[in-house]
Amino acid sequence: MNSLAFDRGLHYGDGLFETLRVADGVAPLWDWHRERLLAGCARLGLPAPDDARLRRAVRSLSRLHRDSVVKLLWTAGSGQRGYARPSEPAPRLLASARPWQPLPAAALSLRWCATRLALQPALAGIKHLNRLEQVLARAEWNEDYDEGLMLDMQGRVVAATAANVFVRRDGQWLTPPVAECGIAGVARRWMLDTHGARECELSVADIESAEALVLTNAVRGPRQVGRLGARRWRADAGVRRLRRSWDALFAGRP
Amino acid sequence: MNSLAFDRGLHYGDGLFETLRVADGVAPLWDWHRERLLAGCARLGLPAPDDARLRRAVRSLSRLHRDSVVKLLWTAGSGQRGYARPSEPAPRLLASARPWQPLPAAALSLRWCATRLALQPALAGIKHLNRLEQVLARAEWNEDYDEGLMLDMQGRVVAATAANVFVRRDGQWLTPPVAECGIAGVARRWMLDTHGARECELSVADIESAEALVLTNAVRGPRQVGRLGARRWRADAGVRRLRRSWDALFAGRP
Repeated sequence: MNSLAFDRGLHYGDGLFETLRVADGVAPLWDWHRERLLAGCARLGLPAPDDARLRRAVRSLSRLHRDSVVKLLWTAGSGQRGYARPSEPAPRLLASARPWQPLPAAALSLRWCATRLALQPALAGIKHLNRLEQVLARAEWNEDYDEGLMLDMQGRVVAATAANVFVRRDGQWLTPPVAECGIAGVARRWMLDTHGARECELSVADIESAEALVLTNAVRGPRQVGRLGARRWRADAGVRRLRRSWDALFAGRP
Repeated sequence: MNSLAFDRGLHYGDGLFETLRVADGVAPLWDWHRERLLAGCARLGLPAPDDARLRRAVRSLSRLHRDSVVKLLWTAGSGQRGYARPSEPAPRLLASARPWQPLPAAALSLRWCATRLALQPALAGIKHLNRLEQVLARAEWNEDYDEGLMLDMQGRVVAATAANVFVRRDGQWLTPPVAECGIAGVARRWMLDTHGARECELSVADIESAEALVLTNAVRGPRQVGRLGARRWRADAGVRRLRRSWDALFAGRP
């Protein structure tokens, strides 16, 4: 068995990941990915990766595919048996890329997931490797939906399995806080920092009564939801503006 | 990168594990380990491992060390990107062993952990690979304690980071249920099935007022706690009887 077989990422999910879109060799939101990774290291008590090393990894992968989706894993590295980390942990960086594939711009069809997210402030917000809740939620459907929305244990809306969720109410974009569960997505930050979105607790009724509903992630950007159960939303001019702004970012015109 | 780098166990903790003690080439509690692994597969929706294949893995490792601690990982195998499992998952079995090392029989010194366990019935009881809560709890101390006790989000006692906990009250052994968090340990089952222990919600006060306190896991068996904060417990005849019963199991005299 090679040493990856003894990696604490595999044995305990002791690590973090980032998934980012690289366009023409450039990752426009790199600084935010890096900041989130560092915040995750601080929370988990892991040594932080060297920025130059991360950039080298992304650069060498983007030579393979100029337009790609890069995934970085930063694990606690190999360890002796047991939950205690080695006194001098040697984290492991794993980087991989797949070619970027555009998706049709069609509005998304969503469902509600039965699997709920546990409340765990110690792990909320960061992109750690303990993702069984998302795996179980995603296993609730096959190809008949694009995504599923998840509630927390108290019935509040949190996110889709692999995207943050935004509703528009009275012209204002709103998204649930991520202090108790959920992930502080990089495209979520883009909505908050550059498009005036705000954090707000959201109920199922808030979702269903929204003027428009959008899912965001760092790979696909903002995408409009067209359908959730019996509810339908028409193509929306505000969402199209968001979309153009996102696409400009990846076309080198931020 | 080899295929383990794309394993869903590493990327999402999508898998299960078992850690068992092998004595003179025999794993006396094998059936219970296997049953728990199968229960975990059913819960996560993973194909179950073939019993003969598992037994072969344990047998071939026990040729290396007749007295050993064997760890089995059963992951969802390699997958495409994303939380959705492949339509035909090909789980991966990873097996490793280290020589058995007896520990001194000294009573354990415990602390309370600040890290709490989230309530998640969908994952409670099974031995899955999402163990960051235990990693964070174990990182709260260095070598100054043997173990730490963890509470759930509602302040109920659940377990130590790598062992179940039993208190004796009026001569009766009691342990917390594992329906909302915690792991259904194999040595816990031995206490319930063959030593008359019962499930019961336990508070911090219940722990501190116990006649005797015991930690159990499948590798080390029942071990008496001698110290928790300011509280001390003397060596106890009932715990010694438990200990003899456990040792007999691994000496081939069940």
